[in-house]
Amino acid sequence: MENKKIEKIGVLTAGGDCPGLNAVIRAVVKTAIVEYGWKVIGIRDGYEGLILKGKTQPLLYDHVKGILSWGGTILGTSNRANPFAYTIKQGGKVITEDRSSIVLERIKELEIDALIVIGGDGTLSIGKQLYELGVPLVGVPKTIDNDLSATDITFGFDTALNTATEAIDKIRTTAESHHRVMIVEVMGRYAGWIALQAGLASGADIILIPEIPFNLDKICEVINERVQCGRTSSIIVVAEGAKPEGGNVVVKMIVDESTDAIRLGGIGDQIAAAIRDKVHLETRVTVLGHIQRGGSPSSFDRILSTRFGVAAVELLAEGKFGRMVCLKSPNIDSVPLSEAVQKLKTVDPQGELVHIARSIGVSFGD
Amino acid sequence: MENKKIEKIGVLTAGGDCPGLNAVIRAVVKTAIVEYGWKVIGIRDGYEGLILKGKTQPLLYDHVKGILSWGGTILGTSNRANPFAYTIKQGGKVITEDRSSIVLERIKELEIDALIVIGGDGTLSIGKQLYELGVPLVGVPKTIDNDLSATDITFGFDTALNTATEAIDKIRTTAESHHRVMIVEVMGRYAGWIALQAGLASGADIILIPEIPFNLDKICEVINERVQCGRTSSIIVVAEGAKPEGGNVVVKMIVDESTDAIRLGGIGDQIAAAIRDKVHLETRVTVLGHIQRGGSPSSFDRILSTRFGVAAVELLAEGKFGRMVCLKSPNIDSVPLSEAVQKLKTVDPQGELVHIARSIGVSFGD
Amino acid sequence: MENKKIEKIGVLTAGGDCPGLNAVIRAVVKTAIVEYGWKVIGIRDGYEGLILKGKTQPLLYDHVKGILSWGGTILGTSNRANPFAYTIKQGGKVITEDRSSIVLERIKELEIDALIVIGGDGTLSIGKQLYELGVPLVGVPKTIDNDLSATDITFGFDTALNTATEAIDKIRTTAESHHRVMIVEVMGRYAGWIALQAGLASGADIILIPEIPFNLDKICEVINERVQCGRTSSIIVVAEGAKPEGGNVVVKMIVDESTDAIRLGGIGDQIAAAIRDKVHLETRVTVLGHIQRGGSPSSFDRILSTRFGVAAVELLAEGKFGRMVCLKSPNIDSVPLSEAVQKLKTVDPQGELVHIARSIGVSFGD
Amino acid sequence: MENKKIEKIGVLTAGGDCPGLNAVIRAVVKTAIVEYGWKVIGIRDGYEGLILKGKTQPLLYDHVKGILSWGGTILGTSNRANPFAYTIKQGGKVITEDRSSIVLERIKELEIDALIVIGGDGTLSIGKQLYELGVPLVGVPKTIDNDLSATDITFGFDTALNTATEAIDKIRTTAESHHRVMIVEVMGRYAGWIALQAGLASGADIILIPEIPFNLDKICEVINERVQCGRTSSIIVVAEGAKPEGGNVVVKMIVDESTDAIRLGGIGDQIAAAIRDKVHLETRVTVLGHIQRGGSPSSFDRILSTRFGVAAVELLAEGKFGRMVCLKSPNIDSVPLSEAVQKLKTVDPQGELVHIARSIGVSFGD
Repeated sequence: MENKKIEKIGVLTAGGDCPGLNAVIRAVVKTAIVEYGWKVIGIRDGYEGLILKGKTQPLLYDHVKGILSWGGTILGTSNRANPFAYTIKQGGKVITEDRSSIVLERIKELEIDALIVIGGDGTLSIGKQLYELGVPLVGVPKTIDNDLSATDITFGFDTALNTATEAIDKIRTTAESHHRVMIVEVMGRYAGWIALQAGLASGADIILIPEIPFNLDKICEVINERVQCGRTSSIIVVAEGAKPEGGNVVVKMIVDESTDAIRLGGIGDQIAAAIRDKVHLETRVTVLGHIQRGGSPSSFDRILSTRFGVAAVELLAEGKFGRMVCLKSPNIDSVPLSEAVQKLKTVDPQGELVHIARSIGVSFGD
Repeated sequence: MENKKIEKIGVLTAGGDCPGLNAVIRAVVKTAIVEYGWKVIGIRDGYEGLILKGKTQPLLYDHVKGILSWGGTILGTSNRANPFAYTIKQGGKVITEDRSSIVLERIKELEIDALIVIGGDGTLSIGKQLYELGVPLVGVPKTIDNDLSATDITFGFDTALNTATEAIDKIRTTAESHHRVMIVEVMGRYAGWIALQAGLASGADIILIPEIPFNLDKICEVINERVQCGRTSSIIVVAEGAKPEGGNVVVKMIVDESTDAIRLGGIGDQIAAAIRDKVHLETRVTVLGHIQRGGSPSSFDRILSTRFGVAAVELLAEGKFGRMVCLKSPNIDSVPLSEAVQKLKTVDPQGELVHIARSIGVSFGD
Repeated sequence: MENKKIEKIGVLTAGGDCPGLNAVIRAVVKTAIVEYGWKVIGIRDGYEGLILKGKTQPLLYDHVKGILSWGGTILGTSNRANPFAYTIKQGGKVITEDRSSIVLERIKELEIDALIVIGGDGTLSIGKQLYELGVPLVGVPKTIDNDLSATDITFGFDTALNTATEAIDKIRTTAESHHRVMIVEVMGRYAGWIALQAGLASGADIILIPEIPFNLDKICEVINERVQCGRTSSIIVVAEGAKPEGGNVVVKMIVDESTDAIRLGGIGDQIAAAIRDKVHLETRVTVLGHIQRGGSPSSFDRILSTRFGVAAVELLAEGKFGRMVCLKSPNIDSVPLSEAVQKLKTVDPQGELVHIARSIGVSFGD
Repeated sequence: MENKKIEKIGVLTAGGDCPGLNAVIRAVVKTAIVEYGWKVIGIRDGYEGLILKGKTQPLLYDHVKGILSWGGTILGTSNRANPFAYTIKQGGKVITEDRSSIVLERIKELEIDALIVIGGDGTLSIGKQLYELGVPLVGVPKTIDNDLSATDITFGFDTALNTATEAIDKIRTTAESHHRVMIVEVMGRYAGWIALQAGLASGADIILIPEIPFNLDKICEVINERVQCGRTSSIIVVAEGAKPEGGNVVVKMIVDESTDAIRLGGIGDQIAAAIRDKVHLETRVTVLGHIQRGGSPSSFDRILSTRFGVAAVELLAEGKFGRMVCLKSPNIDSVPLSEAVQKLKTVDPQGELVHIARSIGVSFGD
């Protein structure tokens, strides 16, 4: 695909839900139309919209009216549709096929001159591969966990943080009235950003994150010390990916393949079971789950999404394909897609935020 | 205890958490002091504050400043302390004793002339027994599930409803973007008020309540019909106490005694497992849990709590002991404690709200 | 127009904005389609959509998807378009004409068999006149001020109340930190429901409503007494229609015809000016204004709106024209349109809510 | 005052209200006690607490329990008490005196070894003067307008932004339903940060800020063009300090010395008056006012406040007096107080945010 003048662009959203996706789409559509006079095609359900037929629609100026404040994505998304390893069920079996050539054809058929893909590292990796096959393309990073190293922060995180903090605020008064240990499990499989920041923002007593292995005895010790000071309630905020030192959680794992893995037998439950044995306080677990991914984006996220959307269109206009927009505070910048997804950004156990938390008396269970 | 002139009253909160408890306390204290010139003693942690020593405090006017908007209760609460069956651990064993005589002595020691007890049916039943032993006492009903037949509505319910609805609003956009079935499990062990009203308020497609046994095949049929109309997402709001017709949930129960019974293997998980077998849509479960009991009370709940608190003090002033304040819309009224806790108020399967829901296309899985 | 079988209905919204309008429209459309198989025509911008051409659109099931939680009305509204006294500008002059015959023609052209009009007393009065001209029609009452006597409560009020209370909650901490008198002016020209209830819900010290004329000296006295008790801040919630006893506000009126009459020189400002003279505390005014009419409806309002919408369709199906749906707690009922708009429902100065407020120490400035 | 070992510190808050003040106080108290074993004295009502007697209190660990999420400041504040120019009324006259020597004495009496002052440029300037007189002191910057050049961002701004955006979200649906021009006046006397960002976050059509003088004819032209495209509503977000090009607002100013200068005859009203003359759309003004300064701080603000509080204590511990903590993203840093208050940070009319806004079609009225 030669580098021809752009007249029509496509845009798609892929991966897990994240507040701000619609704000990006809106900014892309408005900028493309207002500033450059391009047409915009909306591709539905992530890359699936480039594999199957009938999953595209023109996006006009009025289609994006009002969507700035909406959660979700008007284009739909798909977690799984990978053109390079597309899985279908045939007979009783699951077959994986490379459908990337179909995607290239479809792009040609649709007369799309350039593509904006909005998604997480999976989505951006596929984008990189498509770019290497000649598709003029830029990426917009999306990760609610804020764990992409190539951007200071991504949209959706601030909203998720506010949702988690508000939920913990509600749980706190019950903890205090009932003299309970309240464990709140938040998102964060590999990085503890939400747990750490929601814990700080909600005044958690103990914060458990994947980057700092915890010790159950230590946690119980902290709670017991608090009881001795007359503090008969404690709030523990735990990232779903938090892990004990050397795997010493002695309670049995609760695994059920047929059910929702996020909830059953989660780390929160395991810690609760251990605390119930060793501390004479009622202990309750709340798993915040999907509410963290939804809702109207915060002001910060709406603005960041808008900046990313405008910047993505400008990258296309400048012919800077194969790149991802990012925030290098306070500026919007871009990096090659190849760099974009290389490294996970995790919490530095020696970093400032952990130090701050320890200074005000928060325990990390270590 | 003869019916002497009141100079000092006691107030306690007992049972599960509920937004509006502090607003009742505030109204009791302000009215007692401003209108009647009484002293008020706060009794901590429910009836435990009348069994153990050192758990009372004077409540002055300025102690209740600002608490109108707080969740929880500044007096603390206790789910379990029953003076007539007080459980203690002795050696390794749990012993149950009648401590009601201690309570009567303590009330005499504290020179409390009358008592206001704020709580659910357990709390009010104990109140009734104490009243029969001669304690001049009135009750204020508290049930977040809104299942007391003696009052049209209780405080806390409106707040819980708003919390549940806001959470489902957040989950809806993800459901739509991802073409998922989202199951949201809300409170309601015996009565489906929260599920029914939060379902109506959030536009749920299927609402499952204890009063209407559901049929899993029917649920799957409804979802599949929706898919055929192009509606690739569905929201199911399920009360924790919802039950299948004739017990035909065929998935295995997930029970773990050492963990939080509310969450693990809850009804939401069981329905999800069944749907995953029969419907080709991703299905996710969110258990709202404790956030429904916390948070700043809604305007409605703040006002109702205030009305209840003032009315309780007035009942005392009029010597109308052994009664519970209640709402007979639009008026505040009172009923004997003996009537107050007799009957559970459940959703009428033939009633107006269920009819309304069916009229706009909601299924009850029946 | 004879009472023929209904196949197609029209629906319109008129008058000031009110959270819950979209929820009514959604319930009307769903019930009409799902339960009765009728077609629904949306009429834009109130009665104007029946006077001018090109202002109608079919409302299909999917058109109302998601609107349950939206503020505003997808049909638009108009405050002023009265078919019986339609004002147009001709030359430089404003002319008023009777266009009701056009409305009757338009209804015939559109093959609308029955009409649902959603609005306040103005809208319903027009509805009554159209009904008397033979239009099969029912009304749904809408008044954010909750001042219609024919219904216990209307949708929108609970949301407005929550908005006002949340705003006053925010202002309270500033009042306390800065030792200020904060005056918050809320809606309520003729009835003080919002001021009274938002005042109760936010812990206001002084509440001023149209039904209880206030005395500026008394207000200053209350504030000064509070200062002497060490309470250096006071919150005054005032309905826009509150009035002094015998017109003794001695500050000059601030009137500017070219500007927004609601804000400039409002009652809040006048009271502030008087307080500044007599009390040594900084005094600030906030006029909540239009935010009270917007926003996503509360759970209560979404449910009530849905009940009203379903009930309105059922009235049509039963041929009960010329009536308005209403709430006679806890049931939905209906009354003739002629009764519906007769009497304003105002706060009873001797009623329970005022009594409650006084019991906890609130002053009404009288 | 020699640089002796710290055993006791004082903390005060001064200037206008700002969400996050309590979070700073909490972090200061916790860090001082937990990390350093210092005592903390709370000084009430800003510098006034160092001028008058009886305005201090010990701040223990439990005094700051729960205040993280509160708006306002538990220490109170004062806009005006300047030790170097303290104004008192004597007879009928206002006298200004230098009371700084009293402040130095009071600090000695209280045995305060070091001071943390939390406030805006006025507060920090006084802090700088006290430091120059020998008081070991550090500052924490507070400005809800985000207009201090020495820090990337200050706490309170994010909360104010969310409050403004949520309010505009509510107003938007009314604007659309009623085909109105809605003008929303937000804070920002010298810098347009809130207007610009709340405008971006709420999808405003026109944003007016002090840094870009506007032209009323241009504004009317933009609205009329929108009408011609069928967009019958427009949202204008205007900073209170926005100014027309060359002062060409032709409507008369509405000034009343005895009333609240922020509201009466504000820029919003003036623009509305001009639009009403030239555009055939109803126009309404809402002045958000004091709600922007109150409310529970957002997660971001709670975290930033906590970081500032911890960092301030650490500066004291390191003996780095005369400095102000600040954010140099992503790190906390510090600058000399002399630099801190030199320069106002204003919106760059050529900067990225303005560019972004223009790219999506926002007009600045220029």
